[in-house]
Amino acid sequence: MSDPKQSKVVLDESQMPTHWYNLVADLPTPPAPHLHPGTRQPLVPADLEPLFPPGLIEQEASTERWIEIPTEVHDIYRLWRPSPFYRARRLEAALGTTAKIYYKYEGASPVGSHKTNSAVPQAYFNKIAGRTRLTTETGAGQWGSALAFATQVFGLTCDIWQVRSSYESKPYRHYLMETFGATAVASPSELTEAGRAIREQFPDTTGSLGMAISEAVEAAAKDPNASYSLGSVLNHVALHQTVIGQETLKQLELFDEGPADYLFACAGGGSNLAGISFPFIRENLEGRAATKIVACEPKAAPSLTEGEFKYDFGDTAHLTPLLKMYSLGPDFVPDPVHAGGLRYHGMAPLVSHCYHEKLIDAIAIGQLEAFEAGVVFARAEGIVPASESNHAIAGAIRQAKASTEAGESPVIVIGVSGSGQLDLPAYAEFLSGGMENS
Amino acid sequence: MSDPKQSKVVLDESQMPTHWYNLVADLPTPPAPHLHPGTRQPLVPADLEPLFPPGLIEQEASTERWIEIPTEVHDIYRLWRPSPFYRARRLEAALGTTAKIYYKYEGASPVGSHKTNSAVPQAYFNKIAGRTRLTTETGAGQWGSALAFATQVFGLTCDIWQVRSSYESKPYRHYLMETFGATAVASPSELTEAGRAIREQFPDTTGSLGMAISEAVEAAAKDPNASYSLGSVLNHVALHQTVIGQETLKQLELFDEGPADYLFACAGGGSNLAGISFPFIRENLEGRAATKIVACEPKAAPSLTEGEFKYDFGDTAHLTPLLKMYSLGPDFVPDPVHAGGLRYHGMAPLVSHCYHEKLIDAIAIGQLEAFEAGVVFARAEGIVPASESNHAIAGAIRQAKASTEAGESPVIVIGVSGSGQLDLPAYAEFLSGGMENS
Repeated sequence: MSDPKQSKVVLDESQMPTHWYNLVADLPTPPAPHLHPGTRQPLVPADLEPLFPPGLIEQEASTERWIEIPTEVHDIYRLWRPSPFYRARRLEAALGTTAKIYYKYEGASPVGSHKTNSAVPQAYFNKIAGRTRLTTETGAGQWGSALAFATQVFGLTCDIWQVRSSYESKPYRHYLMETFGATAVASPSELTEAGRAIREQFPDTTGSLGMAISEAVEAAAKDPNASYSLGSVLNHVALHQTVIGQETLKQLELFDEGPADYLFACAGGGSNLAGISFPFIRENLEGRAATKIVACEPKAAPSLTEGEFKYDFGDTAHLTPLLKMYSLGPDFVPDPVHAGGLRYHGMAPLVSHCYHEKLIDAIAIGQLEAFEAGVVFARAEGIVPASESNHAIAGAIRQAKASTEAGESPVIVIGVSGSGQLDLPAYAEFLSGGMENS
Repeated sequence: MSDPKQSKVVLDESQMPTHWYNLVADLPTPPAPHLHPGTRQPLVPADLEPLFPPGLIEQEASTERWIEIPTEVHDIYRLWRPSPFYRARRLEAALGTTAKIYYKYEGASPVGSHKTNSAVPQAYFNKIAGRTRLTTETGAGQWGSALAFATQVFGLTCDIWQVRSSYESKPYRHYLMETFGATAVASPSELTEAGRAIREQFPDTTGSLGMAISEAVEAAAKDPNASYSLGSVLNHVALHQTVIGQETLKQLELFDEGPADYLFACAGGGSNLAGISFPFIRENLEGRAATKIVACEPKAAPSLTEGEFKYDFGDTAHLTPLLKMYSLGPDFVPDPVHAGGLRYHGMAPLVSHCYHEKLIDAIAIGQLEAFEAGVVFARAEGIVPASESNHAIAGAIRQAKASTEAGESPVIVIGVSGSGQLDLPAYAEFLSGGMENS
């Protein structure tokens, strides 16, 4: 890099990835298939047809290494991609670290998070399959607003069940969904059998992603023109998100930097972690790098670090296929921590597989440590990170401190999955000393 | 442009402007000087020393065409500049227009608006003058959060008086100021004589920028270590913002587009309009273009279209110098419309001069038309614009429709001054049909 002060690399649209990267093609051992919940046999495409369109079902089971991004999707990606990649020079100075810290920032998307990377292709493949309506769940609201935008683009209607604790504490996110033309309700709701049953059993529940998934799946299954859409966990979602990691590798190279020594990314359902890390795992597998990849999950929902690796349901009402994943059990209701996007009982099967095969590491971060990191980052870099992203930043800061003490200067990359502009009440709570360390 | 679908031009840091552009050097007739409120004689630098540091006082009266951006400021600009410039292909399609619409987007800055362009140099010039504290006012909160960020960068403390109606209806913005380490209070407050006097006379007031300025000026004047900082109106603020227009001209060229036929920008105090338009005015004056420049102000505070061009105070308590500007009078309290950043009784003297000399045009836009335009824009382009920016978008849409009817294909540039992520309650109010057309 000729400019020693350069703080970012922003690629041209001509340098956008043209394909999604499918890690399955390169895995040393194949991941376990999803199972039919009744027969416990591997799913066949027909099993998924009531829920998903053919294009996504094909991707879910694909073993092709590269899957072309359709022109219609690529054209929409142009609105915010390639996303910027920064050298965090001011954060390094604030920490007094000898480490070199970089970060990939997904917060400049239409809804301020990485979620649009999958929402747009999901809406597209549903559109070409003739579906006219999508249903989904959302935790903190990033996924819901992403799908609201994407369905607007392709002329579909969109109904969103948002975890009640987030719906109430983060109203701006459902305003955003409504601005894009979608309908959002708090879950559990009175609109579905699953919701009514949960409300009867637990009248005071603050909701969970598992419950909201049950409602959205039920609504889609009952409407022949509707599909269900999931913002994380599944293989095709991880696939779509790999544009993040592909761009990151190219941008790191343009900084004249060698391979990364560490990559930190937050992990809830796993789509953000998968998206940035899968292209890095390929570099490791092919011997071009030895990057230590660290999933940063919240202490409130520590599926990788404390869950069990087993076949489990994705939802509370046991409507989904069985997925082989690290799980805390579908009835797990985490504390209502602010990183709503990380409040999920399970972890994406592909991410779980990689963790089990020791291709990635994992740590759990408490809420206070996460927000302390977020404030340091915001004051240094001028970007207020999403609550979820703060977990990755906290993990990276731990490593930067350790490297400084050891007199080392590793290259640390952080995946900053989104903007925290709509998480500001959580920052205010943290700054006032009123936040609990769940 | 070789790619017919290209949607944006993002410049490298190496293409950032190195100088601010001072329109005063090129104006055919000199603008009227600011006057001392007591003597009514033109201000001398010593008059401003209790309020501003030498670097800014010099810029306020400068007639130099190009003023170098200090390295320390340039290094901070790198965090978000150059800002992106888009061809609004999807908006064009949504409108079915024959016009070619482009927009410059300042919403990716640390606080989501153009205001950091001036906050950073203001904090810097105060820092090198030995000041340790800045005071300011803010309407919707964009300026306050920008100064909170900038003072954090240079290690100054920051006290902000925010117009009460905005403080209460837009709490996220003061959370943002606090996240950057500043203190924010609702104005009029009990902390100043001016505030207490206003509260006694008008106990139910929702506040105004004029009142908040009085409080911040008083607080600075009483503290020898403090300066007052203004986010709009003054010449040095307009100067700093010219990085916007300089980048826009370069980016338009990189789209292989000829000179713009129209430029629309929102105007409250005038800093956004000045920043994007002054480099365009230079192009017009030097015969390289004939761009029609249109200031879009809110019907609720129509200083250019309904105000009087005269010497007037910038604040309610008559503490500021007299400024020659289009004004509705310092006691004017506009309806509490959502575009809080546009709720100012006057217009920047340089912008007022340009309007009086017919170098720019002006139109007033009602709140409903503004938000209708904002929703169309958001759904097409995936960016939710700031309430203020919606006025510029509405102006551009009026022109696009007129051009389509006339069978013309002009190049229309919109200055989108900020992101509306923190204005979402206003969008929700608009979508619910509950917004008044003030």
